[in-house]
Amino acid sequence: MQIAIVLFDRFTALDAVGPYETLGRLSGAETVFVAERTGPVRNEAKSLALTADRTLADVPHPDIVVVPGGPGQTPQMADAALLDWLRAADATSTWTTSVCTGSLLLAAAGLLDGRRATSHWLALDALERFGARPTGERVVFDGKYVTAAGVSAGIDMGLALLGRIAGDEAAQAVQLMTEYDPQPPYDAGSPAKAPAHLVERFRADSRFSAGRARSR
Amino acid sequence: MQIAIVLFDRFTALDAVGPYETLGRLSGAETVFVAERTGPVRNEAKSLALTADRTLADVPHPDIVVVPGGPGQTPQMADAALLDWLRAADATSTWTTSVCTGSLLLAAAGLLDGRRATSHWLALDALERFGARPTGERVVFDGKYVTAAGVSAGIDMGLALLGRIAGDEAAQAVQLMTEYDPQPPYDAGSPAKAPAHLVERFRADSRFSAGRARSR
Repeated sequence: MQIAIVLFDRFTALDAVGPYETLGRLSGAETVFVAERTGPVRNEAKSLALTADRTLADVPHPDIVVVPGGPGQTPQMADAALLDWLRAADATSTWTTSVCTGSLLLAAAGLLDGRRATSHWLALDALERFGARPTGERVVFDGKYVTAAGVSAGIDMGLALLGRIAGDEAAQAVQLMTEYDPQPPYDAGSPAKAPAHLVERFRADSRFSAGRARSR
Repeated sequence: MQIAIVLFDRFTALDAVGPYETLGRLSGAETVFVAERTGPVRNEAKSLALTADRTLADVPHPDIVVVPGGPGQTPQMADAALLDWLRAADATSTWTTSVCTGSLLLAAAGLLDGRRATSHWLALDALERFGARPTGERVVFDGKYVTAAGVSAGIDMGLALLGRIAGDEAAQAVQLMTEYDPQPPYDAGSPAKAPAHLVERFRADSRFSAGRARSR
């Protein structure tokens, strides 16, 4: 079982590391970080770099594809090399997954047409424009396509998919060892729960808002 | 405000990336990954590498120190270079923090003597042997020392500390943008909640159990 986690310039680190630290603990699985070129790939803040150990071409047939999001997703929407690789990898994958705005990349590759899916809460409208049927759920399974909401939702997705593949006990064991017994100090993790003025501020500033350049 | 996140061979990735993606979003802060040498640092599974952009010597006086854990923590307990740096950095830090077994490194440096602290649930006894007073809490504040339980608890710690430093609204904004509205598919994230046979199996296999070599 091979798990390929895609990296690209200005990805969001936790989008990638959440599934890595949960799903990636699947017994017998090999996880590999892939990008167009090998070497360090910087996140949106530039202060973190994860190493891509293999190129996309090196890993043509992963069993599981994981696509993170982040501000760098916007230029990737026009990157034929990545979209071509996603289509080809998806043709033989067992599971094709995303976290946050990674689902927009799957949708741009034509993989989510008419499918139920999710994304970062600020990107749900954009996801619909690319042909998917967005839901407000945190983790969405539609056939072999599994999409997670923003950033931290990749942890929940990783555990849920691990349970599907290896059984409940395997997933519970990973939950226990990663001590995933969340106790957030606030209850502001979704637009329905956060202070309304914060939600409005982020909507106005979003790169997905109608008034802004798409490439921000 | 400078935040230094320490890396060492065989660290656990989410221990470092949880605080990075929450606390690291503190407005105006510079976050830097530091290690004895610059360059990629591999986690315990070897399939992930985060780049250390600066050496420990390059960053002598961070405002906030973050020490992750992971299996590589055991040999680091005898690494004078790291322990000396921790003591020196702590002398001028505003906050000294850890995730998971990172608290054992703080304790080995003599920084948690008599202090309330926490660690991965398998390491609480070891933490006590090094002079701290372990609690079962997920995030523990004792003066400027902030310790988190295993792996994923660094997310809760990062948000809690961000709230202390920048106020509730700043932390809520980060929680909203990272969509940290956890919905674990199981309720097995602590030894009190997980199936008892899993807890027993991990206790028996732990590198902290009395019957095993300390260096495992």
